[in-house]
Amino acid sequence: MGLIVQKYGGTSVGDAERIRSVARRVARYRAEGHEVVVVVSAMAGQTDHLLALAAQVADLPDEREMDVLLATGEQVTISLLAMTLIGMGCPAVSLTGFQARVCTDDAHTRARIKEVETERIRTALGDGRVVVLAGFQGISPSGDLTTLGRGGSDTSAVAVAAALGADACEIYTDVDGVYTTDPNVYDRARKLERVSYDEMLELASVGAKVLQIRSVEFAKKYGVPIHVRSSFSDAEGTWVVEEDESMEQVAVAGVAYDRNEAKVSVRGVPDRPGIAARIFGALAEKNIVVDMIVQDVGEGDRTSMTFTVPQADLKRALSVIEPVAEDLGTAEVSADTGITKVSIVGVGMRSHAGVAARMFEVLAREGINVLMISTSEIKVSCVIAEKYTELAVRVLHDAFGLGGERPGGSA
Amino acid sequence: MGLIVQKYGGTSVGDAERIRSVARRVARYRAEGHEVVVVVSAMAGQTDHLLALAAQVADLPDEREMDVLLATGEQVTISLLAMTLIGMGCPAVSLTGFQARVCTDDAHTRARIKEVETERIRTALGDGRVVVLAGFQGISPSGDLTTLGRGGSDTSAVAVAAALGADACEIYTDVDGVYTTDPNVYDRARKLERVSYDEMLELASVGAKVLQIRSVEFAKKYGVPIHVRSSFSDAEGTWVVEEDESMEQVAVAGVAYDRNEAKVSVRGVPDRPGIAARIFGALAEKNIVVDMIVQDVGEGDRTSMTFTVPQADLKRALSVIEPVAEDLGTAEVSADTGITKVSIVGVGMRSHAGVAARMFEVLAREGINVLMISTSEIKVSCVIAEKYTELAVRVLHDAFGLGGERPGGSA
Repeated sequence: MGLIVQKYGGTSVGDAERIRSVARRVARYRAEGHEVVVVVSAMAGQTDHLLALAAQVADLPDEREMDVLLATGEQVTISLLAMTLIGMGCPAVSLTGFQARVCTDDAHTRARIKEVETERIRTALGDGRVVVLAGFQGISPSGDLTTLGRGGSDTSAVAVAAALGADACEIYTDVDGVYTTDPNVYDRARKLERVSYDEMLELASVGAKVLQIRSVEFAKKYGVPIHVRSSFSDAEGTWVVEEDESMEQVAVAGVAYDRNEAKVSVRGVPDRPGIAARIFGALAEKNIVVDMIVQDVGEGDRTSMTFTVPQADLKRALSVIEPVAEDLGTAEVSADTGITKVSIVGVGMRSHAGVAARMFEVLAREGINVLMISTSEIKVSCVIAEKYTELAVRVLHDAFGLGGERPGGSA
Repeated sequence: MGLIVQKYGGTSVGDAERIRSVARRVARYRAEGHEVVVVVSAMAGQTDHLLALAAQVADLPDEREMDVLLATGEQVTISLLAMTLIGMGCPAVSLTGFQARVCTDDAHTRARIKEVETERIRTALGDGRVVVLAGFQGISPSGDLTTLGRGGSDTSAVAVAAALGADACEIYTDVDGVYTTDPNVYDRARKLERVSYDEMLELASVGAKVLQIRSVEFAKKYGVPIHVRSSFSDAEGTWVVEEDESMEQVAVAGVAYDRNEAKVSVRGVPDRPGIAARIFGALAEKNIVVDMIVQDVGEGDRTSMTFTVPQADLKRALSVIEPVAEDLGTAEVSADTGITKVSIVGVGMRSHAGVAARMFEVLAREGINVLMISTSEIKVSCVIAEKYTELAVRVLHDAFGLGGERPGGSA
């Protein structure tokens, strides 16, 4: 008996048969006595279809209108799921983002949820209905439709769960949980039973794309337990929860990698105050997110700066940096897209010494050169040549004891 | 210089190229100094696509949820048209039915507009923007999405034009106006320059499907001049306006026909008070619209009743009538779908005597038997065997002098 928020992604509601399958699960939860709020994404492929329509009529579609367009995707899914439930004899009502009062700021196509006014949801639950809520969308202070950006339905689900004080937020997806590393890269990857919010944030930010980062931040802030699980089975998935003692006993919880970064070097930069501010200020102005930054110990009055940006932003980044470099006189800019960032993540690092050193040693033993390093309290990241990605992931996974037998026996 | 409401149907916005073509016309009107509100339907085929999706998940989809689903069709169109306009440098903003405060009752899938609160539309016009409004949809008193039924976008356009006190409401469609009869049936059909609201209502109700009936009622009530015209040319179409003297000079403005009726006869009915009430009360309870009704002069203590219903409702009508007839004892029910209703319409009938007689004479001369007759102030309708449809339309068209040379010479 409890209040459960369930979120189903686009693949899980991709056609009529899958919608019926979701409806059966939802109806079962309700029959067991739970109150259920279901948050759904657009049917798989629908958002791309809408983006393609927009591309046919405008080169750079207006963002307010883009949100009006994209919001239809989830609206189709909520109505179909609600009518399926009602057809099965399970009372249900669909609510769009504006009807459920999912209030956001007015940053179209990447809005942030400010508040969820739950009155209408609570009334419907009180009437014994399942509430089927459109994820990914909200309403701005001026009454315009907004969307939260790709993956935003996760955030919708967690925000609603937080606002309702739900007992759990179940995220149904096409994988069955969070793994120690990408099973496509290493078949000894193991499903984690539990992972802390902070570990999940670091894993998500370095490329494990199971949950949208913002949804995990939200869950952490409001203490919402997330259960990531498969929409194709009833097996337990991975719980994303508050950190506890058992998590601290292992140094490393997972190994992640990200091939989508590019490395930019600016050499021959005058070694005086204000230069870094100028370079990174120019990038920030263009909304380009810089990840790792390394400044060399200078030689004479010159130094070098190296940083990483998303590959998708590289062209724009160079067009911003090159004029600045030219302006500085002798500076010289180069870029490299053939890199990967490999990271080990674990809250246990706080209490286990020498984790970073062990990582460097393992990579060195395989002859893998480390190009850049960055560390946080619970993560160590190394930039290496892209060709070593799989090798690095596998040797680190083994070195930190993540492997072991996979459930169901040896691969 | 004026305030113009333009409505474009599904064919007119059926693909990106047509949306661009609509946008060019809208932008031109604005450049000429007009304030423009554009009301659009779902892209051609979209509503059927959504209905098919619903049919996949539920046998009898919940009507509230059906409205949530169908409302996405127009929402896609408004966003695409608005972003096209903005991309052309023409300031525009899309508004859904709920954003524009198109307030309806809560009769889902066939809601009626109660009021349009124009504040947000006026503000946007005042800012120099074109307002692109979703037709066919509104919002109920409880904040639920509603739709107005097939063809409802016409009504949306006229209602908005009335609420704004617009100078004209232009209905763009895939025909270039209202004709004296169906050009597919008779190539001497002529485009009418002007037609009165009442004539348009009679023509629409007997099968000339250019405008939704309710939109004409709305236009008549609020005196909104409607201009029906082609979205593929700039030629003048047909104005639907207040009746004037010129219209009264001709007896008949047009000949219409409707093949979608079925004739039901109930014979051997006891000739006593209350029987008709019982039969038609039973039909009304099932929301079946009865059009023509004829009761024979009885023979002895028995009489017969004959009436027409839409063919689509025939099965349901019979299932209602048969038990009643059985209950009455000797009554016997028969049905005929091989009929057509042919009508002549014209405000001039009020002042021209003998119009009905002339109609019967013309039909009789061709050996066409009249099965039922009904008349109104400005219309005479005859039910005939379906096989005579084209013949009847042509001879009536000629007999009342509607032919003449077609524009552009003889056919």
